[in-house]
Amino acid sequence: MRPNIVLFGDSITEESFASGGWGASLANTYSRKADVLGRGYDGYNTRWALFLLHHLFPLDSSSKPPVATTIFFGANDAALLGGFRERHHVPLDEYKDNLRKIVAHLKECSPTMLIVLITPPPIDEERRLEYARATYGEEAMKLLDRTNENAGVYAKGCVEVGGELGIPSINIWSKMQETDGWQKKYLSDGLHLTAQGNAVVFEQVVRVFKEAWLHPEEMPYDFPHHSEIDGNNPHKAFQPLVSFPKFNNI
Amino acid sequence: MRPNIVLFGDSITEESFASGGWGASLANTYSRKADVLGRGYDGYNTRWALFLLHHLFPLDSSSKPPVATTIFFGANDAALLGGFRERHHVPLDEYKDNLRKIVAHLKECSPTMLIVLITPPPIDEERRLEYARATYGEEAMKLLDRTNENAGVYAKGCVEVGGELGIPSINIWSKMQETDGWQKKYLSDGLHLTAQGNAVVFEQVVRVFKEAWLHPEEMPYDFPHHSEIDGNNPHKAFQPLVSFPKFNNI
Repeated sequence: MRPNIVLFGDSITEESFASGGWGASLANTYSRKADVLGRGYDGYNTRWALFLLHHLFPLDSSSKPPVATTIFFGANDAALLGGFRERHHVPLDEYKDNLRKIVAHLKECSPTMLIVLITPPPIDEERRLEYARATYGEEAMKLLDRTNENAGVYAKGCVEVGGELGIPSINIWSKMQETDGWQKKYLSDGLHLTAQGNAVVFEQVVRVFKEAWLHPEEMPYDFPHHSEIDGNNPHKAFQPLVSFPKFNNI
Repeated sequence: MRPNIVLFGDSITEESFASGGWGASLANTYSRKADVLGRGYDGYNTRWALFLLHHLFPLDSSSKPPVATTIFFGANDAALLGGFRERHHVPLDEYKDNLRKIVAHLKECSPTMLIVLITPPPIDEERRLEYARATYGEEAMKLLDRTNENAGVYAKGCVEVGGELGIPSINIWSKMQETDGWQKKYLSDGLHLTAQGNAVVFEQVVRVFKEAWLHPEEMPYDFPHHSEIDGNNPHKAFQPLVSFPKFNNI
């Protein structure tokens, strides 16, 4: 009965229901109005994401398409060639083209779907080096996986695709860097988000959803608010719902 | 593709995706394995919950039933007659009978569904009086809405129904009171849960899910983990999924 909002992306989406996560905050904001489903895949780039499209968003009528989908890839695509995450690298042009394919598929799935692109977040290189050393030893020091500059190139590419296709995009790479101390404030390991970083993503997604048409305050409750229920005659509040043969047998 | 876990209950379920909430924690724990859907209705008692059953859990084959459902009512049913929440009161025998009806409906919906009953939490009466005074003025002081003793009577009734029907129950009323200072540690307004209170519910639900068969570590990922994907030949990892005519056109 409720519409679905799908969050499609990499680990930053997969982790979005952890404490303070932006996915959980969205689910809370749209509580009783929409279901928020996490479709985040740790380590995935846009090339691998394409393999999931027909499974997650089937084109047949077997399942209702989401009313809104966020597409939040790029952090892995932007991994450096030669770095310890090079297996995840996707060239910029292919990244942009993959985003176009994902959007085209979603539009085919539902022409009315609200589609929002989110750029990769900025990178705290200092912390990435610490993380690499702790995880992979001294060897990894020479093989920095990501730079902030390169993440910015992919963020720019993502925003360009949004403009080209006429769909909203959130430049989280730029947005986060507007705040002093963003490196430690918003990023836990130089890449993934702290609770404060999650709050930034959450605020931006809700802002864009509202600017489009997905305004939580304006969406109907799935069932009557308790204040509308007459304790002595509860049937009345639920009368409009009575359309099931077995309903009156309860 | 993923199974659904449904959380059916009152405001304590509706709020469960707020920061530190037990619903969000469950969604995080079952990430990439099951979708956790909140079906919490602020102020609802079991009498009003019955009106939702056929909508939330239809008996026709139009939607796949959840693999697991938590039933977390009683906090409103146990509201005192004569208190400022008496509109929500449901007598104990009817509460127990309504729980039986809900369970019977879910079993009809799916005989294999894992059904878990959760009792109402304990009540911090001191805080409830403060809350009543702040919200309703001095008048409300004479009209305490809930007592811990009465919540305990409903908790006992809930556990009895679980035993009678052979389904697991979580006595959160007892469990929370095992810890010194439970009043302020676990309850924010004498009734609803703090982050620590949410953590207790989360731990108990996961424990019971695991003791049954819904063990997150043993459930398969919906798609390959990134470490299983060969960067040079990603098709291979996704080969078992190729069953869609359009799949190779991407």
